[in-house]
Amino acid sequence: MISVEEALKHVMDNVKLLTPIEKPILDSLGLVIAEDITSTISIPPTDNSGMDGYAVRSEDIRGANPNNPRTLKIIGEVAAGSMPDKVLEPMTAIRVMTGATIPMGADTVIKFEDTNDLERINKIKDTENILIYKSPLKGTAIRKAGEDIQPGTTILNIGTKLTPASIGLLASLGKESILVYPRPKVAIISSGNELTKPGTPLGAGHIYDINTYSLSALIESYGGTPMIMGIAEDNAESLSKLINGSREADLIITSAGVSAGYYDLVKDVIKDYGSISVWSVKMRPGKPVVFGVLDGKKTDRWDKTVPLIGLPGNPVSAMVASHILVRPAIQKVMGGTQFKARTIEAILEDPIINEDGRRVYARAILSKNPDGQYRAQLAGSQGSNILSTLANSNGLAICPETVSSLPAGSKVIVELIDQQLNL
Amino acid sequence: MISVEEALKHVMDNVKLLTPIEKPILDSLGLVIAEDITSTISIPPTDNSGMDGYAVRSEDIRGANPNNPRTLKIIGEVAAGSMPDKVLEPMTAIRVMTGATIPMGADTVIKFEDTNDLERINKIKDTENILIYKSPLKGTAIRKAGEDIQPGTTILNIGTKLTPASIGLLASLGKESILVYPRPKVAIISSGNELTKPGTPLGAGHIYDINTYSLSALIESYGGTPMIMGIAEDNAESLSKLINGSREADLIITSAGVSAGYYDLVKDVIKDYGSISVWSVKMRPGKPVVFGVLDGKKTDRWDKTVPLIGLPGNPVSAMVASHILVRPAIQKVMGGTQFKARTIEAILEDPIINEDGRRVYARAILSKNPDGQYRAQLAGSQGSNILSTLANSNGLAICPETVSSLPAGSKVIVELIDQQLNL
Repeated sequence: MISVEEALKHVMDNVKLLTPIEKPILDSLGLVIAEDITSTISIPPTDNSGMDGYAVRSEDIRGANPNNPRTLKIIGEVAAGSMPDKVLEPMTAIRVMTGATIPMGADTVIKFEDTNDLERINKIKDTENILIYKSPLKGTAIRKAGEDIQPGTTILNIGTKLTPASIGLLASLGKESILVYPRPKVAIISSGNELTKPGTPLGAGHIYDINTYSLSALIESYGGTPMIMGIAEDNAESLSKLINGSREADLIITSAGVSAGYYDLVKDVIKDYGSISVWSVKMRPGKPVVFGVLDGKKTDRWDKTVPLIGLPGNPVSAMVASHILVRPAIQKVMGGTQFKARTIEAILEDPIINEDGRRVYARAILSKNPDGQYRAQLAGSQGSNILSTLANSNGLAICPETVSSLPAGSKVIVELIDQQLNL
Repeated sequence: MISVEEALKHVMDNVKLLTPIEKPILDSLGLVIAEDITSTISIPPTDNSGMDGYAVRSEDIRGANPNNPRTLKIIGEVAAGSMPDKVLEPMTAIRVMTGATIPMGADTVIKFEDTNDLERINKIKDTENILIYKSPLKGTAIRKAGEDIQPGTTILNIGTKLTPASIGLLASLGKESILVYPRPKVAIISSGNELTKPGTPLGAGHIYDINTYSLSALIESYGGTPMIMGIAEDNAESLSKLINGSREADLIITSAGVSAGYYDLVKDVIKDYGSISVWSVKMRPGKPVVFGVLDGKKTDRWDKTVPLIGLPGNPVSAMVASHILVRPAIQKVMGGTQFKARTIEAILEDPIINEDGRRVYARAILSKNPDGQYRAQLAGSQGSNILSTLANSNGLAICPETVSSLPAGSKVIVELIDQQLNL
């Protein structure tokens, strides 16, 4: 048996960062950028108005107040989106909208509310005068060119995961597309003669295929793009066909066919397509795992190598093993850096028994005491076939491989299943 | 001015749960189910084997051990996916794969490892005998029909947000599609003559359109489907055309055009399409907000009413106001129940000054001390035009409207921008 860490290291050493692609920023939420982003422009690009109001020379309005206003001649206006066509002369004002470029000669903006403009909306002529009721500091309501970003400034570093605000920041620089690490295409293959596709009548002695659906959703939650390949029957030909059909994928996930049964074909079929490691990983659930690096048959080489992770067939085992091995692999190929699952320290409410020296990942429901202390209650039956307890859980409470049992009341480390906790 | 709570209540009272649609479970991750899901089948459907091994009668092997094995005649096998075609007679065994239905007459499964089968793989004939080396308890390695789920059991309630495990659970019941609340289509309209589309040369006096991109990404992060309508020029015709083109949307988001400037048209244009409220909301950034309920012009009624939220034009104001008003609205129409933003209590590292009795949402960077105490450091300039500080933040530290300043060192409530915190 190998440790969870050994298995994970082997997987991580054998999955490679995907080749960056140019992608519209509108399709890049959650992706990682593959280049440093440096601004080529100033933001804002020009000195501009922070208010709707009048651009003036501060010396012309010094001391103005409602009882002693200053009168300035209005000589023009600058709408947002147009450039000033006049220079501001002494004792004149130019109307400016928020964001409008400040005319040469002006050093201050007086907002409408501090003028008699409010009384005169829609009646204004460019030749009229305006009364100024306030004398703010020089520079008031003017946003300086480059105040937010100077040309040449690196605003986002390679490796940054894109959020709505950083996508807005890219737009502000005029970038409509950027270099990002793409979402990996992940081929998902279920296997077993006993599997019936949901939505069709259940055959005698059959069960519905679960892993295609739960693993597809997991891959999506990790950021990958699932490719549903279907259910392989328990014969080499059927499985080989689906493996070969997955050659365009960046990662292949199989489930079932990795334990000791007579009809376990995954291992034998994979051998024809590349190198393979068969592991007993010191974890429960999820012990039997296959890892392969495939590049096609000798007679039909693929264009690239594709890693394969063969998960156990039990739905809970498959999901837990995916959480431990597939999630970090997908983070890595997408340029991520946060490989460790988020953990919470909690007080265990039920004992965890470790039967055979494996690391136990017990499905648990986390809650929070009023004092901020987290508690972890086991979510019912821990049988690896019992999916409903996993659906009710938000964490996996860990009993280390070196510990034979964790009694109720002990401290326990809980890995978050969803990487989120709404408590 | 109205309070944040009054504005939010008005929005929430005027957005309606979307009509549920039938959707494949493969496309339903993160959606909320709109029906109780009750199982029509037993899971597992039959008593079945938990191991690869031999189905036996426990009384036939009582006392077996390696020095004193029992010999049973192999009379057949049941592969996973096929039904038993024989009844187990005394002193016989039937080979069963994991998941295979247990033959009538058998009450226990002996795994291969506890027989001499391991030595005989691939050499087996159905007529041969098998040696049994162990005598486990009656019922060992048999999973009973209905052990996980009984027919008639409600396994997911209306209102449940679908996770990978609950999608697997639906698959296990044979459900390939279910009734869910759909993702709302959210029309996004930017406005302003000064806006240039990213990816094209920046016009003189122009800035790049940010809000289309940041709001689109926000809508996507909330679970909605953005519909990019484009940039409205500062004239009634241009804006009216985009509003009218948004009639298929479930929600319309505009930005800019809601403050006091001459070119502010949003309010006037919207009036032709329905009822409208113009608010000064007691918050900073993000004060000027428009809320409308549109149903088309008198001469051209739409098929349905569409709520509209008009956000401020400054990118930071637009995003903060969206966080406060749009996020809960989208949660509601999608059947969600968690409307409040997640909050963290932290120690404030920099003072927050409240200039004018509005609720201040200060962009902040949360960190965690080794002792578990969260700290909130303000993320640089809080000007509503400075988007880079929002991109660097993970929280909005709140200074209440009734408090004139929060000094450094005080306790502060911080709303999570992403609803996630990886600390």
